[in-house]
Amino acid sequence: MNNIVSRLYFASDYMEGAHPAIMQKLVETNLEKTVGYGLDPYTESAKEKIRTACNAPDADVFLLVGGTQTNATVIDALLKSYQGVVAAETGHIATHESGAIEFGGHKVLTLPQKDGKVRAAQIEKMVKDFYDDANYEHMVMPGMVYISQPTEYGTLYSKEELTEISKVCRANHLPLYVDGARLAYALASPENDVTLSDLAELCDAFYIGGTKCGALFGEAVVIPQKGLIPHFFTIIKQHGALLAKGRIAGIQFDELFTDGLYERIGKPAIDAAEQIKEALKKFGYKLALDTPTNQIFCIVSNEVMKKIAQDVEFGFWEKYDETHSVIRFATSWATTMEDTQKLIRLLDDIRE
Amino acid sequence: MNNIVSRLYFASDYMEGAHPAIMQKLVETNLEKTVGYGLDPYTESAKEKIRTACNAPDADVFLLVGGTQTNATVIDALLKSYQGVVAAETGHIATHESGAIEFGGHKVLTLPQKDGKVRAAQIEKMVKDFYDDANYEHMVMPGMVYISQPTEYGTLYSKEELTEISKVCRANHLPLYVDGARLAYALASPENDVTLSDLAELCDAFYIGGTKCGALFGEAVVIPQKGLIPHFFTIIKQHGALLAKGRIAGIQFDELFTDGLYERIGKPAIDAAEQIKEALKKFGYKLALDTPTNQIFCIVSNEVMKKIAQDVEFGFWEKYDETHSVIRFATSWATTMEDTQKLIRLLDDIRE
Amino acid sequence: MNNIVSRLYFASDYMEGAHPAIMQKLVETNLEKTVGYGLDPYTESAKEKIRTACNAPDADVFLLVGGTQTNATVIDALLKSYQGVVAAETGHIATHESGAIEFGGHKVLTLPQKDGKVRAAQIEKMVKDFYDDANYEHMVMPGMVYISQPTEYGTLYSKEELTEISKVCRANHLPLYVDGARLAYALASPENDVTLSDLAELCDAFYIGGTKCGALFGEAVVIPQKGLIPHFFTIIKQHGALLAKGRIAGIQFDELFTDGLYERIGKPAIDAAEQIKEALKKFGYKLALDTPTNQIFCIVSNEVMKKIAQDVEFGFWEKYDETHSVIRFATSWATTMEDTQKLIRLLDDIRE
Amino acid sequence: MNNIVSRLYFASDYMEGAHPAIMQKLVETNLEKTVGYGLDPYTESAKEKIRTACNAPDADVFLLVGGTQTNATVIDALLKSYQGVVAAETGHIATHESGAIEFGGHKVLTLPQKDGKVRAAQIEKMVKDFYDDANYEHMVMPGMVYISQPTEYGTLYSKEELTEISKVCRANHLPLYVDGARLAYALASPENDVTLSDLAELCDAFYIGGTKCGALFGEAVVIPQKGLIPHFFTIIKQHGALLAKGRIAGIQFDELFTDGLYERIGKPAIDAAEQIKEALKKFGYKLALDTPTNQIFCIVSNEVMKKIAQDVEFGFWEKYDETHSVIRFATSWATTMEDTQKLIRLLDDIRE
Repeated sequence: MNNIVSRLYFASDYMEGAHPAIMQKLVETNLEKTVGYGLDPYTESAKEKIRTACNAPDADVFLLVGGTQTNATVIDALLKSYQGVVAAETGHIATHESGAIEFGGHKVLTLPQKDGKVRAAQIEKMVKDFYDDANYEHMVMPGMVYISQPTEYGTLYSKEELTEISKVCRANHLPLYVDGARLAYALASPENDVTLSDLAELCDAFYIGGTKCGALFGEAVVIPQKGLIPHFFTIIKQHGALLAKGRIAGIQFDELFTDGLYERIGKPAIDAAEQIKEALKKFGYKLALDTPTNQIFCIVSNEVMKKIAQDVEFGFWEKYDETHSVIRFATSWATTMEDTQKLIRLLDDIRE
Repeated sequence: MNNIVSRLYFASDYMEGAHPAIMQKLVETNLEKTVGYGLDPYTESAKEKIRTACNAPDADVFLLVGGTQTNATVIDALLKSYQGVVAAETGHIATHESGAIEFGGHKVLTLPQKDGKVRAAQIEKMVKDFYDDANYEHMVMPGMVYISQPTEYGTLYSKEELTEISKVCRANHLPLYVDGARLAYALASPENDVTLSDLAELCDAFYIGGTKCGALFGEAVVIPQKGLIPHFFTIIKQHGALLAKGRIAGIQFDELFTDGLYERIGKPAIDAAEQIKEALKKFGYKLALDTPTNQIFCIVSNEVMKKIAQDVEFGFWEKYDETHSVIRFATSWATTMEDTQKLIRLLDDIRE
Repeated sequence: MNNIVSRLYFASDYMEGAHPAIMQKLVETNLEKTVGYGLDPYTESAKEKIRTACNAPDADVFLLVGGTQTNATVIDALLKSYQGVVAAETGHIATHESGAIEFGGHKVLTLPQKDGKVRAAQIEKMVKDFYDDANYEHMVMPGMVYISQPTEYGTLYSKEELTEISKVCRANHLPLYVDGARLAYALASPENDVTLSDLAELCDAFYIGGTKCGALFGEAVVIPQKGLIPHFFTIIKQHGALLAKGRIAGIQFDELFTDGLYERIGKPAIDAAEQIKEALKKFGYKLALDTPTNQIFCIVSNEVMKKIAQDVEFGFWEKYDETHSVIRFATSWATTMEDTQKLIRLLDDIRE
Repeated sequence: MNNIVSRLYFASDYMEGAHPAIMQKLVETNLEKTVGYGLDPYTESAKEKIRTACNAPDADVFLLVGGTQTNATVIDALLKSYQGVVAAETGHIATHESGAIEFGGHKVLTLPQKDGKVRAAQIEKMVKDFYDDANYEHMVMPGMVYISQPTEYGTLYSKEELTEISKVCRANHLPLYVDGARLAYALASPENDVTLSDLAELCDAFYIGGTKCGALFGEAVVIPQKGLIPHFFTIIKQHGALLAKGRIAGIQFDELFTDGLYERIGKPAIDAAEQIKEALKKFGYKLALDTPTNQIFCIVSNEVMKKIAQDVEFGFWEKYDETHSVIRFATSWATTMEDTQKLIRLLDDIRE
């Protein structure tokens, strides 16, 4: 694997394995024998710690494997067959899940976004317009709301924004579901004011992302109101999302929620991202968006993009115009200061 | 976790973590950075080793997470919307997958079984009867055949039986799919004469089970004829079965297929099962079925069952009559000689 | 169409158009202008007459187009995603609907039948066995019960049998749904003791068949407890079962429920069937089953079958043995005494 | 039904029954006995006449019941599970089918429209952008194109536009499907230059609308290339779209395609619409769109709307601004000159 040592990796936040504490625990417990399907004591312990961290003592907690799977399973479980899920037009479920929501029979009802976010007033208007339409019984009823924290663009909902959305959702009996694939990077951002407790208070379901936040895999679904989704275990199984050796997810979340690790684990990513953003600005690069989490979107000429690509793995986001592109640098819990400094020096050398 | 040390665990073959070689490799590679979704070099290496082991150099290989998920994804990919999958009435997809096949829109067309197996002639008759029926266009067309090796009852298809089934399937254009959740235990059984190469030659798709055979999780789908399922990557994603950190599965299968580990890993389970079966017979217990792999089905009085349960975790299979039950002991790659001996002594003490 | 005049038609009960009173009303109202989708006054009137006939003043009534469509729509509306529908292994939904139930994501959980019927005790046992199974959360939960009146074999549930089934269903919170594709033939049978009121009292949903009982098409779903299926209008639309010119169904059911026509319309079919059965017995033919409605199942040698086929259209039901077959004669509301007598004479001539 | 005589009805084109020639034939043939499921001679004759009218001698033709049902069935039959259907954002399948396409598991991939139409270049760009996207395997693949003729807005694709779209579709292996719910009104429009033959030449599937064009119900699916959709009969049945008494649809289309009735039947609607449009312009009303078929979209103040509503049934289309609305008048094959003149006089009296 020599070839991958010399390059710099900022292409995504799921390029490494797991936090060393997790790996150590997996090794320590490896030959223990426990029952399957998440009924083991490690999973129980993880669930209890998550309840505590969310200040939601009665919450139902389930550990699933991946993000698309979690979204498809939770959304299918919350919707009636004739309902759709409201989401930003840039939402992951609307764009990058290969039609997993539609595979479950549901339409994604999209709203225009700003910085990856939707506003409470938009949701309110969509619902009002729906019921005002003489033909609404021939249309797809808005049945729940999906947002992500951070968003696809790395931006954050403020507590005030989330509270507004929650109010509109509750007034209209729409369950509010938050995709927290990168939640650790929200929690570690100095600009964030939405805690796990806030999520538990304001949402009807959300998931705490493991895959992108220090686990080998795994997403923890939290349903603050116990029993909201009856027979969710069977629904998970039916969606192919039930892990036989459930404890492998259990151990990981148990570690992530020991001594507040989850709330700290994103810090190196945020620090690195801050330094890179500062450097980009200083060097005259143009940011596409000012994001407070671990993703940095930068508009560069195609020549500069090529030069960077010689030494760095990054994400091509989209064409900006004929001669420029938007590229994404993603940092992670495992990003080192050393790599960050190397990237900054390289960006300094290349600048136009 | 003290309470779980003193008991004997023969309840299932997915109670431990992973083979130590796998754990070691996961730890060694933990902080390496690789691309996601199975495009990393470890997954590539695993696929290549699997192709070699199966003597199927052109095969498409995909690594998924769990068994139900794999069955649902492969079956949905192989069937047309109006087709069903033929299976034994005891097949896993017919009984214990919470309707995952039906969730994908397909009927399971069941056949009576003997020792968990279906015969070629039964399949041939079902297809003939279907097309002979004046109303066949109003019925669900048999679209593929599902069997498992070993079966739900731990029995094995012989190469001759499998060849017969394969012939009938090919003559009728029915893809043949083999669920190999416990395939390592077939491969390690002295009674087995079906190799990985045979599977690749006789089947249209099969999966090599990881979860029950020494991995933390993971099932390797082998499609001997490259391109048989176009866009299977997207289908996997749509079914929520795509692992973001694909290399975690890749590393595991890379280890399992290093130096023939997979073909050896089931040996301790088979040895232990043989000893337990011998002992049961010697002590006068009645076997429900003579099985050549790692599952032992035994008919005991309910009193004996209760006594065994005081010290041993086993599986309750089904009620035999008002006063007797069928119980299952499952051994695994991790079963120790020590635990096996303890179980045997205990069964000796308890015998009626 | 000369060729079809000389033959005798006993192949099915949907070979003619509609009862003349229906045709007349359709012609009379043809150029009236009414709103669509079943909101017209004819449909309203039909619904009200059906409520009255069923002694179910609060019932929700919906008019759909065909039987498979109605079953698929109602069953999908009543089940949760993880539930299946319990039916006789010979039930229409289990055999002759091309997988329409599975297309909606649900398993048909079959029970052995006797004379096309299931018994309350079987349902009770299935539910008990399900919840007694340690793995029930990995299985498909029985979510409702489907029966048909008359059954696929033309037999009838007695009021006592239906009451027993209803009790078991209610005790187990399983909605009971009755497929009444041929309900008029049950209502006209002297052996029948189950009225429309009984159905409304004992079932949670049932449909009054139009297609086979004197209408051009159309099935009236009755849901005695108003509001049991919220948003059923939209569910009907989503299943492609909403008729734009809803009044065409409305007018038909309005006529069928004027002056008790529906309860009388099957009489000629029953009378003809009685005479044919008597004749068959007298002539030494062997009945496969003694049925009190409009279907007659007869076991004949293949030679006799061929002879009958020279002049009569009938249904081939199934092979009985190498040299005999089960054939079906179906009478309908439109069967004439003349044709019945011709058939009887012909059967007399042919008898072995 | 006195109350409905005094009003003027321009709310939709499915307010009446069927063309008198159809009613007469249904009455004449009412007591004939024919086989079911569309295998009768009337359906055969209708199919053959449609093939002739479309100059497509090898075409597969199927008669279904309604529009949403037809769209859902054809689209599900043409797409692979992981593909979506491209449509204008105003397309019927995208807006007014209660999620029937998603119920079948497919996403509707919407394009911005102009006058209800999409352009070839938009489709080409969507496909190019899809395959240019680094993440396209995580997205929903465009699998076919849906347009309607006339569109939802009553506009028409010219032969040139349709040819361009067809070229792009064929170059990209996307089946092109045309929803012809109101096709008779296109064929009768003097501005139309797309014939049935053109549709058969340029499309892979289309349907000839019956429900809105003179039939009680029924839509004729034409698949010019025989065998393009294998087992479509079973797919129709599975979608609940198979009519038991298939001849009822057969007779209707047989009449509609006798002596070119279908191509003439829309004429009165077009004439009436022309007169109404002329009058609206003359009286100073503002048209929202200039449409050459049987739908007229007009922007009126809410006061005027209320006044019109006192005597006329029309369609409320959408809010235009706080004080104005878009309303729709629809004419039909059954619209009389008398009613048209009454409407014009009324609009003259009311004008602002």
